[in-house]
Amino acid sequence: MTSEAALRVVSSERPAGEDGRVPDLAALMGALGRRARSASRVIALAPTAQRNDALVAMAAALRARQAPILAANALDLAEARAAGQPPAFIDRLLLDPGRLSAVAEAVEPNGLRFERVATPLGVIAVIFESRPNVTADAGALCLKSGNAAILRAGSDSFRTATEIAAALREGLEAAGLPGDAIQLVPTRDRDAVGAILKGLDGNVDVVVPRGGKSLVARVQSDARVPVFAHLDGNCHVYVHAAAELAMAREIVLNAKLRRIGVCGAAETLLVDEACAATHLEPLVTALIEAGCAVRGDARTQAAAARAEAASEADWATEYLDRIIAVKVVAGLDEAIAHIERYGSHHTDAIVTADAAAAGRFLAEIDSAIVLHNASTQFADGGEFGFGAEIGIATGRMHARGPVGVEQLCSFKYRVHGNGQIRP
Amino acid sequence: MTSEAALRVVSSERPAGEDGRVPDLAALMGALGRRARSASRVIALAPTAQRNDALVAMAAALRARQAPILAANALDLAEARAAGQPPAFIDRLLLDPGRLSAVAEAVEPNGLRFERVATPLGVIAVIFESRPNVTADAGALCLKSGNAAILRAGSDSFRTATEIAAALREGLEAAGLPGDAIQLVPTRDRDAVGAILKGLDGNVDVVVPRGGKSLVARVQSDARVPVFAHLDGNCHVYVHAAAELAMAREIVLNAKLRRIGVCGAAETLLVDEACAATHLEPLVTALIEAGCAVRGDARTQAAAARAEAASEADWATEYLDRIIAVKVVAGLDEAIAHIERYGSHHTDAIVTADAAAAGRFLAEIDSAIVLHNASTQFADGGEFGFGAEIGIATGRMHARGPVGVEQLCSFKYRVHGNGQIRP
Repeated sequence: MTSEAALRVVSSERPAGEDGRVPDLAALMGALGRRARSASRVIALAPTAQRNDALVAMAAALRARQAPILAANALDLAEARAAGQPPAFIDRLLLDPGRLSAVAEAVEPNGLRFERVATPLGVIAVIFESRPNVTADAGALCLKSGNAAILRAGSDSFRTATEIAAALREGLEAAGLPGDAIQLVPTRDRDAVGAILKGLDGNVDVVVPRGGKSLVARVQSDARVPVFAHLDGNCHVYVHAAAELAMAREIVLNAKLRRIGVCGAAETLLVDEACAATHLEPLVTALIEAGCAVRGDARTQAAAARAEAASEADWATEYLDRIIAVKVVAGLDEAIAHIERYGSHHTDAIVTADAAAAGRFLAEIDSAIVLHNASTQFADGGEFGFGAEIGIATGRMHARGPVGVEQLCSFKYRVHGNGQIRP
Repeated sequence: MTSEAALRVVSSERPAGEDGRVPDLAALMGALGRRARSASRVIALAPTAQRNDALVAMAAALRARQAPILAANALDLAEARAAGQPPAFIDRLLLDPGRLSAVAEAVEPNGLRFERVATPLGVIAVIFESRPNVTADAGALCLKSGNAAILRAGSDSFRTATEIAAALREGLEAAGLPGDAIQLVPTRDRDAVGAILKGLDGNVDVVVPRGGKSLVARVQSDARVPVFAHLDGNCHVYVHAAAELAMAREIVLNAKLRRIGVCGAAETLLVDEACAATHLEPLVTALIEAGCAVRGDARTQAAAARAEAASEADWATEYLDRIIAVKVVAGLDEAIAHIERYGSHHTDAIVTADAAAAGRFLAEIDSAIVLHNASTQFADGGEFGFGAEIGIATGRMHARGPVGVEQLCSFKYRVHGNGQIRP
């Protein structure tokens, strides 16, 4: 039995696995996860009205199924009573027609004033490699956002970082603040990284890796505290059927070649087949003449003789080099599907004069930054008006996109009353 | 050598551990963490002007220390060259006077329009115990926020939850949405919880435990994905020197006794010694007469004969019962220190007519919800105008306080251009 089949059997209305073990729990749970992931995408894109329709229909179904629900509840109650559960437990478990049909009680205005204010996250650990300027940049950004910093420099820049950190400590103390607010890990011992990733007994709130892919991968895999990072910046430019060629050429060249080593650099160009006849060869030629190698699918190679052949691996590669992958797609749907399959949810752009196509691309591409008619190289906190950034995050929790002062903060609620008690 | 002493030695300007291992890395890293935590509190409360003073002083110190920084960098460079590092590596490592004094380049307006829009988090897993209504409540809240849900019901309510989940699936499908958007784990097998906590191969974005402390503790300890939860709701009411007795009595009775089983119920009453002579005995008597046991410190017992003796453990206990701990504090500083030491960063209130004292309390208490002249029982998403909530979080990442539709969302950036490329 395949795992999907197993799940269907077990999730029928009267589950087979009610009491005991299921034959292959790992397969069942794996299938559950994949189905949820797949459904999550539909739900995320469903309009509010449709979600509300579902809520109404769900309520109707709950009312219509009162009999089987209460019958099932009676079985649960009988089992709980037989197990000798205390009355409070039984009461929590009990459903009756009144409870099942209960609607949320109206909330009366209570005169309280609620305020949400930013607060620092606490302690940010930054693990970086050779660039010694990160010591000062990251320390300053943590201070600006009211956080303490633990900085772990690469072995290669250890002495430089030590001197820079001493200057930062002097500055803190000159302003009457604790020098410990910016601490450099005072040893090259590699086990220090492991200790930080375990959270130093709850004293690290976030880890930010600044460096190459192997560092980021290790931190993402081993950290027991939240991580702000991106593993890949496999960014796309999609030249839609309604793209103006001159604009597309400018944006593609800039997105790929302005700086090839930044995470916002484009790595794959998708060209719509509806404009391939006019746009594909000029775009590929412009890239090659600007010194960029092109790895294309069959249609790209047919259109531009100097393009090399792309392999499956090219669609998933962040070159950070003067190389770009090029593919012809059948339209917006295939472009979105390709980016969702191979992309890294970092930064993706569409070039088009068609507002509806742009709207769909911006809504449906699940990336931290989506652009219409602009270069992916704008993926930078400074360009967003956030000031300095400590990096770009592709996680969905807390920080997404450029991580600046705001993203290094949490918040709390202040409630102002004049004696209010809750009815 | 103590660990603090070891850290001082190693963190001197010319670190002893430069090349090799340190004698006791665990002690060193532990001390580093504790010092960062301690400094983080000072930094968090420092005014922006003082932080800016520190930034200015740090910049001055960097300029003043150019010679030792560049000398240290020369040693790092020599080592890197001796190790045969490639030119690009050497270039990243290199500092010179120009790089050291570089200031951020001004950002020119670029005409791009940046938009931050909410997006669902993806898949929310909710693990709950006996209350079967959580199946419908949590499923609906996930749907409202555009997320798919994986619901793990307690064994005790498994049949009831199965019937309710079937109704939800029917409602989803009636509205043309995938039934898999709300999946109940179709087995009572306990290993399913472990599988969810591991994230189902990346298919779970957040776990929300809804249940008792042992469930929450297990989820917080074992989850490899983010958790929205609170372990304890050890909430305080601090009756300040300038508190009006009648208001204090109303708020204390409501905060403790309106519902004793909710996480926002008060568990400790702190009374300022400046008003203890007039306020302490009436507050304790009112609590006892309302059926609440009082466990007090020596001064509370002296003032109210019916108070029992509190032990150290009482200050850290979430009773969820008709019991309250009562302590006399020397003033605002001791009240804040007590709450920071024993509290759970959930919800804490001050009763006072002194706006300055209230302001300090609201600023310095590091809890998700802080209230002035209002009952802690307002800790509820409905009261905050968030609508339904899935729980209250005390973590600092992403969601803090009531977790409603907004907190179950992430966001992304949409950038609208008309051909902009980055210079």
